[in-house]
Amino acid sequence: MQKIKIGILGYGNLGRGVELAVSNNSDMELVGIFTRRKDVATATGKAISIDQIQEYKDKIDVLILCGGSATDLPKQSVEMIKYFNTVDSFDTHARIPEHFANMDKTGKESGKLGIISVGWDPGLFSVARMMFGALLPNGKDYTFWGKGVSQGHSDAIRRIEGVVDARQYTVPVDSAMQAVRSGVNPQLTTRQKHVRECYVVAKEGADKDKIREQIVNMPNYFADYDTTVHFIDMEEMKRNHNELPHGGVVLRSGDTYSDKKHVLELNIKLDSNPEFTGSVLTAYARAIYKMSQEGRKGCVTVFDVPIGLLSPQSPEELRAHLL
Amino acid sequence: MQKIKIGILGYGNLGRGVELAVSNNSDMELVGIFTRRKDVATATGKAISIDQIQEYKDKIDVLILCGGSATDLPKQSVEMIKYFNTVDSFDTHARIPEHFANMDKTGKESGKLGIISVGWDPGLFSVARMMFGALLPNGKDYTFWGKGVSQGHSDAIRRIEGVVDARQYTVPVDSAMQAVRSGVNPQLTTRQKHVRECYVVAKEGADKDKIREQIVNMPNYFADYDTTVHFIDMEEMKRNHNELPHGGVVLRSGDTYSDKKHVLELNIKLDSNPEFTGSVLTAYARAIYKMSQEGRKGCVTVFDVPIGLLSPQSPEELRAHLL
Repeated sequence: MQKIKIGILGYGNLGRGVELAVSNNSDMELVGIFTRRKDVATATGKAISIDQIQEYKDKIDVLILCGGSATDLPKQSVEMIKYFNTVDSFDTHARIPEHFANMDKTGKESGKLGIISVGWDPGLFSVARMMFGALLPNGKDYTFWGKGVSQGHSDAIRRIEGVVDARQYTVPVDSAMQAVRSGVNPQLTTRQKHVRECYVVAKEGADKDKIREQIVNMPNYFADYDTTVHFIDMEEMKRNHNELPHGGVVLRSGDTYSDKKHVLELNIKLDSNPEFTGSVLTAYARAIYKMSQEGRKGCVTVFDVPIGLLSPQSPEELRAHLL
Repeated sequence: MQKIKIGILGYGNLGRGVELAVSNNSDMELVGIFTRRKDVATATGKAISIDQIQEYKDKIDVLILCGGSATDLPKQSVEMIKYFNTVDSFDTHARIPEHFANMDKTGKESGKLGIISVGWDPGLFSVARMMFGALLPNGKDYTFWGKGVSQGHSDAIRRIEGVVDARQYTVPVDSAMQAVRSGVNPQLTTRQKHVRECYVVAKEGADKDKIREQIVNMPNYFADYDTTVHFIDMEEMKRNHNELPHGGVVLRSGDTYSDKKHVLELNIKLDSNPEFTGSVLTAYARAIYKMSQEGRKGCVTVFDVPIGLLSPQSPEELRAHLL
């Protein structure tokens, strides 16, 4: 069987997660990892300068983009779909319709197919929210995130004067989750759903009370939450907070237009957010390859993918063993 | 907007569940409930003799079949796809490939589209098993069922001499589920995963010890499980065991080809198995209608359906609000 030829663009945590997944899926072959950085040592030794990427136009079936949503992906994905079928993890919810429109237009012109907003949220959680809503129309949705490291919140703390390093954990409130599971459909405020735990290394002599105040009162990031701040030293940071675990829960509770209640829950616990996200992007690369082979072009999302295409197994095998 | 015109074939518990769901989905219209029974009073007053069903060939967009898998569906679905797009809940796993082949052949001849094996297992649980396996290829699957009433096991007890009525609950073993959730990938025997609880009304003067022995030693149904038997009177049966709750869990635990472990779980709790199953069949009827409109014919399964088609919302709405 012809292997699916994969390229990776970007070599941060997510790029490394995709590299690991692609290298371990026997129906795929990693062609190269395209990066701006010079002399980067990749696990598979396949780094290639991003300046050469157009030379690989006919050597790659699907390019998986591993840049950030703020500045990289809105431009990179649209540029890359001119030459490649693409997968990205664009997660700025408010700008998804605009990103979709740009990708769809360019992909239809180039004859390539791209999927945007893949990962676990958006991605797997979107699939769960959508299916749960369709199967139980008369109900209410809840999403809880964590316990896990939020990179955005950690970065926000690091920008505070006097902070050397920081790690922020988003923690769901267990009693709120239990209330939802019981089927009572509670009204929950932002503060009632999650708490935020911060581990901070401060510069010697820094005013810790002032740092704490700046964190807990930071608008958008922390002001609407109960936030605890722990000051630790760099050694403890490296020993206890060096991983990127995450997870979360999508719950839907409702009735079937009768007195009968039902609760549907997707619950995921991840030791490594980037490794699992990389694995999700890789499975969707397989689906995009197959849809492209069938002549599809433009842009799609997880809602448009027949889920059987995610599997390396044939439709016959899936029906016989997984249905 | 033109409503999707739905027909229901069969009016047992599942048929009533579908009737409830269709009546409450504003993009659908219930045309009729086709039944062999004379003078049946349906909630919507739409009973029609099954002898007249061919007259509705051009008046129904999708026919939802609510018969049993043992004898009804293998014949009925194949007969009905000659005239209608169909949805069925065929759940005899070993015979799915054969049923699929029959449906696909007949549907391709008639130009109609059918989906088989829809519900929560097979159905929603199949989707979860398939997605979890594709997103976490290096792992192990577990499915637990219950706590819930198994109609097949209840019927098996009712066939024993001296039994007037019976209800059998399948109960997952909590410690086994917890072990799986912890990520240790245990090897579990049939006995370690579920226990069986039976509530039995015996004839006056019947030999209860003999009934109990016959239950707990019954091959296939009970012999491989730890089974408890409670004898109760008919009044208690009607008061406490008159509902059909069910539920279950699909778990996958594995790693991303590294030391990083991940646990994915779908967990559902249903007050009414037939009402929720009816709701699932109804959502898939919407998807089949849309796929048929796009020219698809033959047979598909839940693995072939782009999940966005389950929703009454447009692709634009789904991308803006649920992704």
